[in-house]
Amino acid sequence: MKTSLDTSRSQAEALDRADPLAPFRERFVIADPSVVYLDGNSLGRLPRATAQRLARVVADEWGAELIRAWDGWLDLPVRIGDLLATTLLGARPDEVILADSTTVNFHRLATAALDAQPDRRAIVTDRANFPTDRYALEGIAGARGLEIRWLEERPNGPSDGGPEPAEVAGALDGQVALVTLCHVDYRSAAIADMTAVNAAAHDAGALTLWDCCHSVGAIPVELDRPGADLAVGCTYKYLNAGPGAPAFLYVRRELQDRLRNPIQGWFGQRDQFAMGPSYESRAGIAGWLVGTPPILGLAAVDEGVRLVAEAGIGAIREKSIALTEYAIELFDAWLSGAGFRLGSPRDAARRGSHVSVHRADADQLT
Amino acid sequence: MKTSLDTSRSQAEALDRADPLAPFRERFVIADPSVVYLDGNSLGRLPRATAQRLARVVADEWGAELIRAWDGWLDLPVRIGDLLATTLLGARPDEVILADSTTVNFHRLATAALDAQPDRRAIVTDRANFPTDRYALEGIAGARGLEIRWLEERPNGPSDGGPEPAEVAGALDGQVALVTLCHVDYRSAAIADMTAVNAAAHDAGALTLWDCCHSVGAIPVELDRPGADLAVGCTYKYLNAGPGAPAFLYVRRELQDRLRNPIQGWFGQRDQFAMGPSYESRAGIAGWLVGTPPILGLAAVDEGVRLVAEAGIGAIREKSIALTEYAIELFDAWLSGAGFRLGSPRDAARRGSHVSVHRADADQLT
Repeated sequence: MKTSLDTSRSQAEALDRADPLAPFRERFVIADPSVVYLDGNSLGRLPRATAQRLARVVADEWGAELIRAWDGWLDLPVRIGDLLATTLLGARPDEVILADSTTVNFHRLATAALDAQPDRRAIVTDRANFPTDRYALEGIAGARGLEIRWLEERPNGPSDGGPEPAEVAGALDGQVALVTLCHVDYRSAAIADMTAVNAAAHDAGALTLWDCCHSVGAIPVELDRPGADLAVGCTYKYLNAGPGAPAFLYVRRELQDRLRNPIQGWFGQRDQFAMGPSYESRAGIAGWLVGTPPILGLAAVDEGVRLVAEAGIGAIREKSIALTEYAIELFDAWLSGAGFRLGSPRDAARRGSHVSVHRADADQLT
Repeated sequence: MKTSLDTSRSQAEALDRADPLAPFRERFVIADPSVVYLDGNSLGRLPRATAQRLARVVADEWGAELIRAWDGWLDLPVRIGDLLATTLLGARPDEVILADSTTVNFHRLATAALDAQPDRRAIVTDRANFPTDRYALEGIAGARGLEIRWLEERPNGPSDGGPEPAEVAGALDGQVALVTLCHVDYRSAAIADMTAVNAAAHDAGALTLWDCCHSVGAIPVELDRPGADLAVGCTYKYLNAGPGAPAFLYVRRELQDRLRNPIQGWFGQRDQFAMGPSYESRAGIAGWLVGTPPILGLAAVDEGVRLVAEAGIGAIREKSIALTEYAIELFDAWLSGAGFRLGSPRDAARRGSHVSVHRADADQLT
């Protein structure tokens, strides 16, 4: 705690004036400027460009072009996937699509990873994992009689609640097919050590599946370099793509021939409109498409990704660190003696873009 | 062929003037009145109310209410499902939700039906089935080593290309877990005899799964009365809900305790925001929800269903029969001697809302 901390509103306003990203505030619809919105981790704000794009998609494309608009829509899941891959995910073209929900994509990738290794009968994950991932894994493991090896939560451990690579390594052996964790913990904001976890998993012959819901658009994500095999993430939080916008799905290029999309549908079919007698998967990441893609949601993802990419994830990360450091300074000054506990790493390098504060009666307080 | 047929444009215009549904034309955005749009079976037109609703959802709900808008969004999949069930599907409340794509829903229901009958190792369907259904079945059967019993296409058979109940019955025995067909054939428009097929399937102890993509909103659909077990259908054709809008999923109430949603996610979880340690399915049809629902698409489904329900599916069916009878009369007058073949049933009671015309070089012609 800096003793010289200036907790005045005027100091906060001075910081805002010096913020190089401040002009981006004008790029969002802000209906009530008096609202300080701290729920972007749940539903990102509406970009002005998205409101305009959606109006065009509805009136000019669907309304006026009718069925011919599909000429411009058909490759949106792959085209936006390439943009997202190369600007925000540290991935290569043809490794990412936008499709379905995070949970459906997570289920598909976990299933494919298990199908590819039928002799391995265990999955490693942590109890702090986001509920929908845990529920999907429980369903898959139950249906197949697989073991889930749960890493216990260690809120006061060395990773501040994040999964500890040594613990992951300790749970691994030749029975483990899949290791799956959140990249950024949805409560503590702890960033998992993706490089170390991937290395440990690969040493044991297992595949990794990362949930990037709380990292994509919030911190720089690198999937290819640290050797991630599979990943999913939502777009309605830090990518500002709106409620229920389609999620992304990443399959490392080197794995694409080895893994099979377990839900076969006509958008994953080579020569789709030949309506042929048998399923033959499209090459590359497009083989992971299933049904008719949600065009309104895709258009919103397109605008959201462009906006974040324009601001630059490096600049966003710098501002995010400044904001969370400031929040922790205010926590220390105002809350630390009043029954509150900081629930996020103090080391900015291990912390995503949010700060958790615990208190026994938090439910009643909020 | 009536010898008195008047094929003049003025006669067609007179029929339009006498059409009791004519005022509904004003309820749609018609950007270019000179376009005669015959592709509503692929992408329905944009209702004016939908354009307005989407603008409100984007600006007033997402843009202004932000995260609080979820209070009104959370139950949309069930609320619109109840509306669709009771107005257009001949189903009861708590039997239908809007969720995911047709293919993902089809995959989930087929999987659940097979999971519930592990000793039965065969699926019955027809080669005329819509490609995405066939591809999904191939994937499931391949992964589990199941047999698919394909009913052959019989374009000149007694059902004009539709699946013949006697053929279905002939393929059934104690090995069959699931019979799945399209309610209205996507090419011939033949209406399957749902009552007879359900009875034959049930006699053999199998479940039925109906694809209603080409019947919902086009003809009166009755799911409960003829004993349908499971059904799916899309909303972007005759329900005019826009490109990639979410699909519906129906599970007969009496089966809901017996079948398990194979993709477990947080929207299917009882007490979702408790984020509890283990999956416990919501009661009823809500247990078939998976990930975060696509709100823009749902709002468009809501408007689309309301509009069709307001017109009345009985009145739509009457007009549809008049239009297809007229189209067949024109076919007989203009095309039947020129290498064309009618590909749809002549009996209006066996025909959905479209008319197929075959010709050897159709590809080049179109």
